[in-house]
Amino acid sequence: MRATNLYAPTLRNTPAEAEIASHQLMYRAGLIRKSAGGMYSYLPLAWRTIRKIEQIIREEMDAAGGQEIMMPILQPSELWEESGRWGAYGAEMIRVKDRHDREFCMGPTHEEMITALVRDELRSYKQLPVLLYQIQDKFRDERRPRFGVMRSREFIMKDLYSFDKDVEGMNESYRKMSVAYTNIFTRCGLDFRAVEADSGAIGGGHSEEFTVLAPEGESRIACCDACSYAASDEKAALRPIDAPDEAELPLEKVVTPHTSTIALLAEYLKIPVEKTIKAVAYQTEDDTLILAFLRGDHEVNEIKLANAVPGARELRMAEEEAIRAVGGCPGFMSPIGIKEGTHIVVDETAMRMHNAVSGANEADYHYINVNPQRDFGAVTVADIRLVEEGDECPVCENGHLHIGRGIEAGQIFALGTKYSAAMGATFLDETGKAQPLQMGCYGIGVGRTMAAAIEQNHDESGIIWPRAIAPYEVVVVAVNAKVEEQLRYAEEIYEELRAAGVDVLLDDRRERAGVKFNDCDLIGYPVRIAIGPKTIENGSIEVKVRRTGELVNFARDTYLKGVQDMLATL
Amino acid sequence: MRATNLYAPTLRNTPAEAEIASHQLMYRAGLIRKSAGGMYSYLPLAWRTIRKIEQIIREEMDAAGGQEIMMPILQPSELWEESGRWGAYGAEMIRVKDRHDREFCMGPTHEEMITALVRDELRSYKQLPVLLYQIQDKFRDERRPRFGVMRSREFIMKDLYSFDKDVEGMNESYRKMSVAYTNIFTRCGLDFRAVEADSGAIGGGHSEEFTVLAPEGESRIACCDACSYAASDEKAALRPIDAPDEAELPLEKVVTPHTSTIALLAEYLKIPVEKTIKAVAYQTEDDTLILAFLRGDHEVNEIKLANAVPGARELRMAEEEAIRAVGGCPGFMSPIGIKEGTHIVVDETAMRMHNAVSGANEADYHYINVNPQRDFGAVTVADIRLVEEGDECPVCENGHLHIGRGIEAGQIFALGTKYSAAMGATFLDETGKAQPLQMGCYGIGVGRTMAAAIEQNHDESGIIWPRAIAPYEVVVVAVNAKVEEQLRYAEEIYEELRAAGVDVLLDDRRERAGVKFNDCDLIGYPVRIAIGPKTIENGSIEVKVRRTGELVNFARDTYLKGVQDMLATL
Repeated sequence: MRATNLYAPTLRNTPAEAEIASHQLMYRAGLIRKSAGGMYSYLPLAWRTIRKIEQIIREEMDAAGGQEIMMPILQPSELWEESGRWGAYGAEMIRVKDRHDREFCMGPTHEEMITALVRDELRSYKQLPVLLYQIQDKFRDERRPRFGVMRSREFIMKDLYSFDKDVEGMNESYRKMSVAYTNIFTRCGLDFRAVEADSGAIGGGHSEEFTVLAPEGESRIACCDACSYAASDEKAALRPIDAPDEAELPLEKVVTPHTSTIALLAEYLKIPVEKTIKAVAYQTEDDTLILAFLRGDHEVNEIKLANAVPGARELRMAEEEAIRAVGGCPGFMSPIGIKEGTHIVVDETAMRMHNAVSGANEADYHYINVNPQRDFGAVTVADIRLVEEGDECPVCENGHLHIGRGIEAGQIFALGTKYSAAMGATFLDETGKAQPLQMGCYGIGVGRTMAAAIEQNHDESGIIWPRAIAPYEVVVVAVNAKVEEQLRYAEEIYEELRAAGVDVLLDDRRERAGVKFNDCDLIGYPVRIAIGPKTIENGSIEVKVRRTGELVNFARDTYLKGVQDMLATL
Repeated sequence: MRATNLYAPTLRNTPAEAEIASHQLMYRAGLIRKSAGGMYSYLPLAWRTIRKIEQIIREEMDAAGGQEIMMPILQPSELWEESGRWGAYGAEMIRVKDRHDREFCMGPTHEEMITALVRDELRSYKQLPVLLYQIQDKFRDERRPRFGVMRSREFIMKDLYSFDKDVEGMNESYRKMSVAYTNIFTRCGLDFRAVEADSGAIGGGHSEEFTVLAPEGESRIACCDACSYAASDEKAALRPIDAPDEAELPLEKVVTPHTSTIALLAEYLKIPVEKTIKAVAYQTEDDTLILAFLRGDHEVNEIKLANAVPGARELRMAEEEAIRAVGGCPGFMSPIGIKEGTHIVVDETAMRMHNAVSGANEADYHYINVNPQRDFGAVTVADIRLVEEGDECPVCENGHLHIGRGIEAGQIFALGTKYSAAMGATFLDETGKAQPLQMGCYGIGVGRTMAAAIEQNHDESGIIWPRAIAPYEVVVVAVNAKVEEQLRYAEEIYEELRAAGVDVLLDDRRERAGVKFNDCDLIGYPVRIAIGPKTIENGSIEVKVRRTGELVNFARDTYLKGVQDMLATL
């Protein structure tokens, strides 16, 4: 391809709405353009990268036994009523009526569709396992679309679904996918972690996220410094922390004026915050009140908290009225004296404290010498704490967790029989008995992987593509394309590289050298070859590595091998 | 791929709704499954064929200077209001509201989107031409979806849009696309015609349809037997037919009881129907009456008629009341005596008749000795006749038109400035003057091309794939896969073919030979290789060509070349 024919409108400025580097650079480098909030067109350079990512995904899915199919985007509401998700999915689902007033959604995911597709035709254990996948636009009407294609309302996703005859089979399919995902992100040239994750609204059993590390990423992950344990902050399991042994003292109520925060309380009583117990009050979608108690210096993990209360899903901060209705006093709360039947969840670590301080459910009063095991009565005890830098690893002996940030580019789920049981997708097992199919589902955000790659690989001049997913591996620049000799030389080099199987672009534009070099850095081709006056003079071919800035001058007869050797390392 | 791992559920029976062979066979061969009216999933075999067709399309689009992009499926209503099509598109457009009540449609086509995409960035004639395309799901809520993926509500389309600086440039882009389309359908192994077509609701100037010939096709096309002229029946231009010269006789009104049809009239007056003039009355969407007159043995071409009346688009049969309001009498109509200002369109051939018979706008009365040139006054004269078998070719000297049927798999349009002018998509020309972009648009129905291929290539046993788009080129059948020796031999042959670059499937299922052979014929692999007892005995390898049924026995050391030679001809 020649740059004179390439539709790649680069920009000097960044639109105001682009908050993070990848979004800004995708705009400026002429990769994407916005058509409406959370909806983007992929221009030719971006689409080349997307197709390279898709090809890597396809090869790994096929190698793991996947077969590619394509299901419709529009999905009849009846299927979602069978699974119970038509009502549950909420405002993120885009709903459509056809000319006969029949209801459809624009697929946010395809568990229902694929279960319906196979349920009449996967009849025997002999046909299993079956792994089917597609690469397709998905639709979620995000409340706050942002970060360009990273969190958009229409996005490209690879979704694979596995069907097995038993849990062992499902686990084997899950394991294969975990390996395939590791291969995919490795082949894309990305630094990533496979982290334990919450299975959220998809449901089912265990789940892993594949998170591309990037300082501005939305996801917070905890990684052990001694073993391979890694988990999303939503999921990271934590060991309860034992408090030093103490003889239990009698519970006592004390006056504590102006101490409605933990900091004020600790200062007033001249105790460390680790001796206090704090409360956070939530309400669920159906207004059920949940009171959470943790050690004063700890934070609530809302996902763990919701998982600890049956039926709870989305939590919001509780209204004062609701707290008062159960006998609570905001700013001065403890489980002691709260109305029976209220959902009280106490963190495992808080439960092990001795002679601690907590509210007395009365303004300006606290209890001292609180011993939760003795004083709290019937409460739910669970790990509801948010992981912090330096927490002990829950798996190995001596490791500590470190908090990093990243972008979740893929997630895999062992679903079990959640959908197959609800939708009657059964097969006959070896004994002739009907059993629900054991399912798994496995997604990769394709556009998001591209954005994550940029978020992880850029500098102040622009993108630095990993070679495997660069729109072109090499750009050959005719430094002054108006000089016939330079242009012809550049064309020669371009043709030689093409013939050698290199994915190469010729920048033959009659622009100033500075403009072209800036565009090369902005777009981020891994290797730049400049053909200028020195090349004409003495055959010296200047090759620049985008990532390191390294400049190497090759002779005419050695440059090809030099470039190929460079590419092998990028 | 091994058939034991392949998800290809073949069926004995055909669902009742499948009316035509391609739909029936796609069901039975396990290529597609229906999820709702006009919505289908493509299973693995079908998806392989789709991907092969897509790859051929991509190569030809790229070779013609096209660049692949991807625009969103959801399109904001504002863009369609700019072009004036938001109101005009009608019930076929699927409309959606997002959570902020903003209106979108699910793209039925992308002229508005692409015009908006490039209008701020194609600023100079130096950037032109630009040709951008995508391969994407499109949505049209057909009133009567049918024939499986051939006329479905969600379908895969390749759409390319060209932008040029002048009409010559547009015509050059159009010509390149016409060549590319010819290459695509040729490479797919299809027998097709490029036919002149009406540009319909898309608008603009000239247009061609690429019609795959098939006896059950929905499209009627006229092809000359002497030259390369071909046109859709909607478009086929016709030469006016001269009537034999006669001296004009005086107009006379005669009583003609019970002659409200042309047949009855001709019999009553004992004249050939070629001496009569018949009337057909229509009303437009805004109720305007249009009276059409043709020679008694000719039929109206409603598209040509609508094109002859400014502002007319969709025509329906007129109500009697409307006819009477302008002085007409149903069954006995002529232009003579109709109220002034009424839209009267007379076919060119009817206009050349002498001493003909037409209605007298009074029940049971006709005029004889009607001479349209003398008697009809101010009427519109146009070619409004539907082509018939044997009509003279409008282009060459001695040719005659023959009527065939086919499936429209692609259509190309020279749009001109219809969208660019309405949406302010201008560039600066050589003189620095702002000019609207000259556009073209070019579509291929990808799923429809697959269905058309089947419609054209099948027999009573199943599909007969052209090699280039077969899901697999060759199937190797282990005749009795329970016999270890046969299975191992088949695997060996399968691996040899794979190594030689043949796209091959191994049928290793432990089914009866008959079942497997029937499936091979049904699915339609171009070449079948059977490994059975004779192979074990004396190395004889039986190769069958699906299209001809020809059976050839090769020796172990010659079969590979034999199969490759066969494939080259399929």
